[in-house]
Amino acid sequence: MVSTLHAPPDVAAPLAPGQLLARGVCRLLASHDFASLTEVAPAPGLRVDVMALGPKGEIWVIECKSSRADFTSDRKWTGYLEWCDRFFWAVDADFPSELLPLETGMILADPYSAEIQRMPTESRLAPARRRVLTQLFARQAARRLLLLRDPQFSVFSS
Amino acid sequence: MVSTLHAPPDVAAPLAPGQLLARGVCRLLASHDFASLTEVAPAPGLRVDVMALGPKGEIWVIECKSSRADFTSDRKWTGYLEWCDRFFWAVDADFPSELLPLETGMILADPYSAEIQRMPTESRLAPARRRVLTQLFARQAARRLLLLRDPQFSVFSS
Repeated sequence: MVSTLHAPPDVAAPLAPGQLLARGVCRLLASHDFASLTEVAPAPGLRVDVMALGPKGEIWVIECKSSRADFTSDRKWTGYLEWCDRFFWAVDADFPSELLPLETGMILADPYSAEIQRMPTESRLAPARRRVLTQLFARQAARRLLLLRDPQFSVFSS
Repeated sequence: MVSTLHAPPDVAAPLAPGQLLARGVCRLLASHDFASLTEVAPAPGLRVDVMALGPKGEIWVIECKSSRADFTSDRKWTGYLEWCDRFFWAVDADFPSELLPLETGMILADPYSAEIQRMPTESRLAPARRRVLTQLFARQAARRLLLLRDPQFSVFSS
């Protein structure tokens, strides 16, 4: 998903095609006991569509591509590989899946559900990076939750 | 706060006195760059009012007490100490603060803001426990966020 969203997700805003896929993906991940967070920046200049944290601390990254153009215009994706144990694309049934590199994972998604079509090989994060990413994920999720639960308070939105 | 809440927080529900203090506490923590989460169970049978995660991975626990009775009926609080680097009570201006053990932290709170009155000594968590707690915090925060953003999906509420 090509995204310029820097503000926390707005629950009332209509979802873009990539965000609709992300919703299906998050539901899939939940059913696998992975907690997921959308639009996460693991490093400056890098923003992933979905980051998910598994029951054993596994970190997966999922990029949602709503069209061929959306995929081919993404020049940053190889940079995501070093920020997760497994990397997946999420695409819909109309996407030309032969475009996706075979070593990456593939999730077939729609706005309501998704399923894993190809599980990628695991490339384990170093412990120090896993610790930093888990902490970043935790703080980001809690901040967004606070913004939704206490919208009058805006220290994080400045 | 005496709480029997086991469901994820409902943004629309009116807040109990302890939860109002917790709101002020979370605002204070945010201003110190701590991301906080309410009603967290670090272990079975143990539920803390607020758990906060600092910029360096520090974990603080804050129990909110809206009255003397609320404090004196809490027989579990010493059990919270081993789940954080620092432990605080949050009370309002009418609370008889001399009841609070001197070695614990104290936050003076109202529903809108709070300030740290006494910083407790740090008692550092072991790395393995910090890792588990950070992961638990991350997954819990992300699950609650997903429930708010995608209320039609209820895998977590079962």
